[in-house]
Amino acid sequence: MFGAQTPGGGMYPGFGQAGPTPISPEVQQWFQAVDKDHSGQINWEELQSALINGQGEHFSPQACKLMIGMFDTDKSGTIGVTEFQLLYNYINQWLAVFKNYDRNQSGSIEEEELGLAFQQMGFRFSPEFIKFLIARSDLKDHKLMSVDQFIVACVQIQRLTEQFRQRDKEMKGVISLPFEEFLSIAINCTT
Amino acid sequence: MFGAQTPGGGMYPGFGQAGPTPISPEVQQWFQAVDKDHSGQINWEELQSALINGQGEHFSPQACKLMIGMFDTDKSGTIGVTEFQLLYNYINQWLAVFKNYDRNQSGSIEEEELGLAFQQMGFRFSPEFIKFLIARSDLKDHKLMSVDQFIVACVQIQRLTEQFRQRDKEMKGVISLPFEEFLSIAINCTT
Repeated sequence: MFGAQTPGGGMYPGFGQAGPTPISPEVQQWFQAVDKDHSGQINWEELQSALINGQGEHFSPQACKLMIGMFDTDKSGTIGVTEFQLLYNYINQWLAVFKNYDRNQSGSIEEEELGLAFQQMGFRFSPEFIKFLIARSDLKDHKLMSVDQFIVACVQIQRLTEQFRQRDKEMKGVISLPFEEFLSIAINCTT
Repeated sequence: MFGAQTPGGGMYPGFGQAGPTPISPEVQQWFQAVDKDHSGQINWEELQSALINGQGEHFSPQACKLMIGMFDTDKSGTIGVTEFQLLYNYINQWLAVFKNYDRNQSGSIEEEELGLAFQQMGFRFSPEFIKFLIARSDLKDHKLMSVDQFIVACVQIQRLTEQFRQRDKEMKGVISLPFEEFLSIAINCTT
C-alpha cells in the first residue's frame, strides 16, 4: 500500500514527521553529494543531477519537482537533510517496487507489469486506465514506462487519491467538486 | 476568451481542424528552423530549443509538452506543419495577452496582473487561487510568473475547464466525478 511504511498511516510519507529523527550516515553522505552549492538545502535541479533512470538518462524535471514537492512542507522549493532522508527512503521504496515488476531487468515496465504493480498497491484500475498511463509515458510506441515516469504516475495517483478520499467520506467512489477546487486539486497534485 | 479565434468555437484550438489550410510562408520558415532533424515532424525537444522566455531561459519541458499535446491529435508525441501553424498562432496569442499584462515589460507578471488577465479571459477566480498559481510558479519568492509558466497555467486551466463544462450541463458550478475519471482528467489535462 502507498505510504504503508509510515507509522502515522498517512498517505504522504513524511508529512508532519520532520523532527528529531536521526540522519543515517549513508543519507548524510548522499545529501552532501547532491547539495552541490553547499547551501544546506536541495532543489529539484540538484536532485535531478543525482538521479539516473534505467535508460541512462537523468530523471525528468517533472519527477524531481514532484518528489521535492512531496516533502517541501514550507513550499520553498527546497528541502533540508531531514526531509531528504524521508525522500531518500521514499525513492528507494519506489525503486524496489519497480525492480520487482521489471522482471527482465530492462529498466522499464510494460502494461501488464504496471497493472500488477498497482494491484499490489491496492488499486483496481481498468485496463483502459493502465493503457492511458503507459501511452502518456511512451508517446511514440505506447508500450513502456521508465522508472522516473513510474514514480511520477505513482506520486500523482497517490496525491489525487488522498484528495479523493478526504471528500469521499461515505466511500461511494464518487465525489462532488466545485470548479475552483477541481482546478486547484488537479494542478496541485500532478505538477 | 480562450480559443475564441477558432472558427469552430471549440475550446481546443485546432482539434479537428487539420485539413487543407494553407500554410503561411512565415510559419513554413519557422517550421523548417524548428524541425532540426528534418523529419517533417516536431517533438517537444525541438520546440523547446526554439522558444526563449523573458528571462532568457528556454521554455520548460512541461510547457513544450503541453503545447505539443494540444495539437497532437494522434497522440504520437509529434506534430506536422499544419498543426504547427495552429500552435504558432496559439503561442502568439498567449504572448500577446502576456505582453499586454506585463506592463513594465519585465518578462514576468505579478499577482495583480495575472488576476486581470484571467478576468479578461472571462474567469472570476478568488484571490487565493491566483496566489496559489503564482506560488507554484515562483517557488522561492511567490511573486512572479514567467511567460512559459503563464502558458502552462492557461493551458491547464483551459483543458480542465473544458472537461468541467462537459460535465456541468446544468451550469451549477459543481460536478460529480467517479474515482478513475477524476484521476484521468487531472493527469491528462495538466501534464
